[in-house]
Amino acid sequence: MEYFSREIGRLIGELSALPGIGNKSAQRLAFHILNLPKEDVKRLSDALVEARENVCYCRECQTLTDSELCPICSDEKRDHRTIMVVEDSRDMAAYEKTGEYRGVYHVLHGAISPMQGIGPDDIRLTELIQRLQHDVDEVIIATNSSLEGETTAMYISKLIKPTGIKTTRIASGVPVGGDLEYIDEVTLTRALLGRIEL
Amino acid sequence: MEYFSREIGRLIGELSALPGIGNKSAQRLAFHILNLPKEDVKRLSDALVEARENVCYCRECQTLTDSELCPICSDEKRDHRTIMVVEDSRDMAAYEKTGEYRGVYHVLHGAISPMQGIGPDDIRLTELIQRLQHDVDEVIIATNSSLEGETTAMYISKLIKPTGIKTTRIASGVPVGGDLEYIDEVTLTRALLGRIEL
Repeated sequence: MEYFSREIGRLIGELSALPGIGNKSAQRLAFHILNLPKEDVKRLSDALVEARENVCYCRECQTLTDSELCPICSDEKRDHRTIMVVEDSRDMAAYEKTGEYRGVYHVLHGAISPMQGIGPDDIRLTELIQRLQHDVDEVIIATNSSLEGETTAMYISKLIKPTGIKTTRIASGVPVGGDLEYIDEVTLTRALLGRIEL
Repeated sequence: MEYFSREIGRLIGELSALPGIGNKSAQRLAFHILNLPKEDVKRLSDALVEARENVCYCRECQTLTDSELCPICSDEKRDHRTIMVVEDSRDMAAYEKTGEYRGVYHVLHGAISPMQGIGPDDIRLTELIQRLQHDVDEVIIATNSSLEGETTAMYISKLIKPTGIKTTRIASGVPVGGDLEYIDEVTLTRALLGRIEL
C-alpha cells in the first residue's frame, strides 16, 4: 500500500486486522475516520483503550464487564435462582434483546471441542458448579445448536445431575418464518421429536 | 444496551457509528478487541489518533497524506505531465492497484451534485486549474460513471477546453467477466457507441 502515506497505510493495516474487515472496508473506514473531527477520533480511541484497560470478568456470571458484578448480576429484580448457560457474552446480549428472560446468566467463554483441543477445563465450568452451591432452581443450557454446543450441553447436564437441580435445554426446531423446504433434515427431525400439543 | 457494562456499551456505540458497521458487527468487534492483548489495542488506538492528527492534503494532488507531498507526487519516476482526476483517494488506490498507470492524480474530494447542493466550488477544481499552468500533456477524467461523476466530467472538460490540453475520459462499457443479459441498457448503449476496431 505504498500509494498511501505511511500513517494512513498503518491505520488501514490495523483496521484490516479486525475480524470481518477486509482491505476495502478498512480503506473506507480509514478515510471516514480521517474526515471526522479530531474530537470524535479521540473519543473512539479512548473508548477502545479504556474499555480494554478496565475490562474484567463478572465475579458471578463471568461475562466481560468493568466492575466486580455485571449490570445483570447486580440487578436485584432479576431471578437469581434461574441460570442460563451461554457460550459467550454476545449470546447473553441476544437473549436480553428478547426481553423475555428475567433470570441470570453464566458465560462459559467457549464450548467443549475435542477437534480444537478445548476441554471442559478450558471453559468456565468450575465457576458454574460453584454457583450451584447456592440456591438454584433451574439451569437452562443455551449453548449453540452446533456439535460443540450440544457436546457441552450434554457434559453440563451430566455434571449437574447429581445435585438434583432441574436442568433444561432451549428448544431446537424450525426458526420462525423458516420455510420447511430449505431446512436441513436434522433440524426437521428435532422439530418433529420436540413437537408440542396444541 | 444496559445489559453490557457502561464502558463496553460505550465502545459498541462508538464502533457502530462507523460506516457499514451495524450493531451486531460492533458487538463482534468490541468483544474481539476486549480479548486482544492490551498492546494491540494501544497500537490500534494510536494509529487512529496519529493518522488523524497528522493528516493533511497533498500540496499537488490534494489526496489525504501526512506530508506536504504524497508518495506519488514526490515520486520522480512518475509521469507528472499526465494527470488523472478522481473523486476520492480510494479511487486513486483502485487505479494504483492495476499497476498500469504511471502518471499522477488529482483528487476532487467529491463530485458536482445539484441534488445534494454540491457545486463546482465545493470540490477541488481551483487547485486542478492551477496545476494546468505547468506543463501538462493530458488530463484523464476518471470520475465515477454515475450521474454526478458524468456531470463533473463534462464540467471539467469544458473548463479545460480553452487551454488546449488533451482531455480524455476513461471508457465506459461492459465490465470484464460481465454477462450481457444482466447489464443495464445504458451501459450496453455506451459499450456499443464506444466499440473499437479489432
